[in-house]
Amino acid sequence: MRIIITGGAGFIGQKLAAAIARAGTLPGPDGGEAVRELVLFDQVEATPPPEARVAIHTVAGDIADTAALDALFAGGADVVYHLASVVSAAAESDFELGMGVNFDGTRAVLEASRKAGGGATRFIFTSSVAVFGGDLPPVVEDHTAPMPQNSYGIQKAMAELLVSDYSRRGFVDGRALRLPTIAVRPGRPNKAASTFASSIIREPLQGEEAVLPVPEELAMFVLSPRQAIQALVHAAGIPAADFGGSRSVMLPGIRVTVGEMISALRRVGGDAAVARIRREPDPTIEAIVGGWPADFDTAKAERLGFQRDEGIDAIVEAFIEDDSLPAARAAFVQH
Amino acid sequence: MRIIITGGAGFIGQKLAAAIARAGTLPGPDGGEAVRELVLFDQVEATPPPEARVAIHTVAGDIADTAALDALFAGGADVVYHLASVVSAAAESDFELGMGVNFDGTRAVLEASRKAGGGATRFIFTSSVAVFGGDLPPVVEDHTAPMPQNSYGIQKAMAELLVSDYSRRGFVDGRALRLPTIAVRPGRPNKAASTFASSIIREPLQGEEAVLPVPEELAMFVLSPRQAIQALVHAAGIPAADFGGSRSVMLPGIRVTVGEMISALRRVGGDAAVARIRREPDPTIEAIVGGWPADFDTAKAERLGFQRDEGIDAIVEAFIEDDSLPAARAAFVQH
Ligand SMILES: NC(=O)c1ccc[n+]([C@@H]2O[C@H](COP(=O)([O-])OP(=O)(O)OC[C@H]3O[C@@H](n4cnc5c(N)ncnc54)[C@H](O)[C@@H]3O)[C@@H](O)[C@H]2O)c1
Ligand SMILES: NC(=O)c1ccc[n+]([C@@H]2O[C@H](COP(=O)([O-])OP(=O)(O)OC[C@H]3O[C@@H](n4cnc5c(N)ncnc54)[C@H](O)[C@@H]3O)[C@@H](O)[C@H]2O)c1
Repeated sequence: MRIIITGGAGFIGQKLAAAIARAGTLPGPDGGEAVRELVLFDQVEATPPPEARVAIHTVAGDIADTAALDALFAGGADVVYHLASVVSAAAESDFELGMGVNFDGTRAVLEASRKAGGGATRFIFTSSVAVFGGDLPPVVEDHTAPMPQNSYGIQKAMAELLVSDYSRRGFVDGRALRLPTIAVRPGRPNKAASTFASSIIREPLQGEEAVLPVPEELAMFVLSPRQAIQALVHAAGIPAADFGGSRSVMLPGIRVTVGEMISALRRVGGDAAVARIRREPDPTIEAIVGGWPADFDTAKAERLGFQRDEGIDAIVEAFIEDDSLPAARAAFVQH
Repeated sequence: MRIIITGGAGFIGQKLAAAIARAGTLPGPDGGEAVRELVLFDQVEATPPPEARVAIHTVAGDIADTAALDALFAGGADVVYHLASVVSAAAESDFELGMGVNFDGTRAVLEASRKAGGGATRFIFTSSVAVFGGDLPPVVEDHTAPMPQNSYGIQKAMAELLVSDYSRRGFVDGRALRLPTIAVRPGRPNKAASTFASSIIREPLQGEEAVLPVPEELAMFVLSPRQAIQALVHAAGIPAADFGGSRSVMLPGIRVTVGEMISALRRVGGDAAVARIRREPDPTIEAIVGGWPADFDTAKAERLGFQRDEGIDAIVEAFIEDDSLPAARAAFVQH
């Protein structure tokens, strides 16, 4: 099996590549299938995963470049993970960039997959909770209309529709996963409005200060990076017919308030860790993140076998085990 | 005010042009505004409406042709009615054609409107009930997710999202109207699966035979051409802020069964007219049309002031007054 990951140098791309390279197989509708080659495509050169049991290739290129895509797909593609994307803040500040990468780029990768696979290519696309917005019912369901309130969400929602139509027509075998907010992310705070959701766990556990711009009552719908990778792997093996009339599915996250995150931090890092959170209310950030729904009925995802994290403690533990710096691990052991 | 109608040679384009030309004004947020020039753009040369109180220009060209659009918009555009479209059967049999006209074409007309109007151009787009499909709740609401089961519906749904994003960003002031099935259409039966809904009224009233491929219990959600034109005119005057988080709105139709249509035919044309309906069950057509929802809660449209037909009798009378051949009018008077 030849697998292509676009955005293979990114946060999720690197973790997914490591998981596939370690396993050497990927689920198919008839059980595990051996991976022959894993290609990481990104505009920046990707780091190949360590301990690979499969052949790894890294290719630097732009998904908007048709010639680059033709070359990439010349070797065939049994499974495509299309992760390459411009983040929401960038898509909002530069409309043309967002349309070019998030929509036209996805369309180009879909076309390349269609040509390469004759309909058999499994095309796994990462959409986002950001497709939801505006006036929403108290609980968002699989039947709730996406009404994105930012260009990133619009571009993801349009791309999802295309994935469903390409699949219905037999051009590819698509799956569009709507990811909850991913937390706890490793690394540094970034410009995402939701960055505090990772920061208030990660920084204090590493002995650093974190900024909290929102009140403790604010609720979010979150998924750990570990479960997100498991979902991406699981998606490859779901029989196409199980998706029904749409290839889109909202993944099961957990609803968690900022206060609950802080309590989880206290359980592993103690009061000393919690004391490193500095409250700096920011009405703009509160308005953005407060506009994201946190209450979902993810019946379809559950039917398709996707799993949620067990709770906020499990999310924090996954971070400590998978991603934290030695300082955090030491604090965890100490405590 | 300069108004552009794309698809101005089509069924709705011609009726809309006639209505605007006759009135000489179009509603604006602050009341009626005088129309200076009405431009009908279509790949086929449009017929100018009779009795015009405004300057009429017809331009032949393709919405996929950027140079043609630049020339069309060079004179400015206060209101754009973007009706040009490839019908569902054609979009299904030729995917590239449908994407090119229904999606890329709409995007091109949106861009031209953005450049011409600096955000002030009111952009009125005709979407369709075909955005709904698949697994649906018993009553389709404004919050129900579009899951189109054909490429035409996918292209309309993607274009709607773009209209909302262009509007949110202030590029245009958009309104996307989801039209119910339009009946009774004048003319001849065509290849649309729903053609019988017009045929079984129109042909018998004109002394001709009509084919009915579906059972009498089948229900549809319909709107008369007269009300559709009123909705398009009304849409121009709605304050932008009233739309809320999405510029899309499902127009209020009436739910009517085939049996109810036949009863209405009997009331105006008698048993003789009804006898001209030939039952020729067609499971394929029944499956397609039966998959379209007929039960809608159109609260948003009602709040925005859109109106439905009073009932099936009013729809039949509108057809007789507006569109029928003399034979039908005579039958109506006789009866
Ligand atoms: N992490 C989250 O919280 C989250 C939530 C919802 C959805 N998603 C989606 O998951 C996917 C992966 O997210 P991530 O967190 O790994 O993002 P990331 O920004 O870390 O990775 C995206 C990668 O795409 C690459 N890329 C961007 N434009 C490109 C182009 N034109 N050509 C080639 N490569 C290009 C970037 O170089 C980057 O390596 C994205 O589609 C994202 O929208 C992520
Ligand atoms: N009539 C209905 O029942 C109904 C229902 C739902 C939605 N709609 C929508 O309403 C709009 C008008 O419908 P209609 O019934 O008048 O359709 P129509 O087919 O009579 O008119 C469409 C017009 O668009 C023109 N056109 C097509 N491709 C073009 C291109 N590339 N460049 C320039 N012109 C082009 C055609 O020549 C035609 O005159 C369409 O957008 C349609 O999708 C109609």
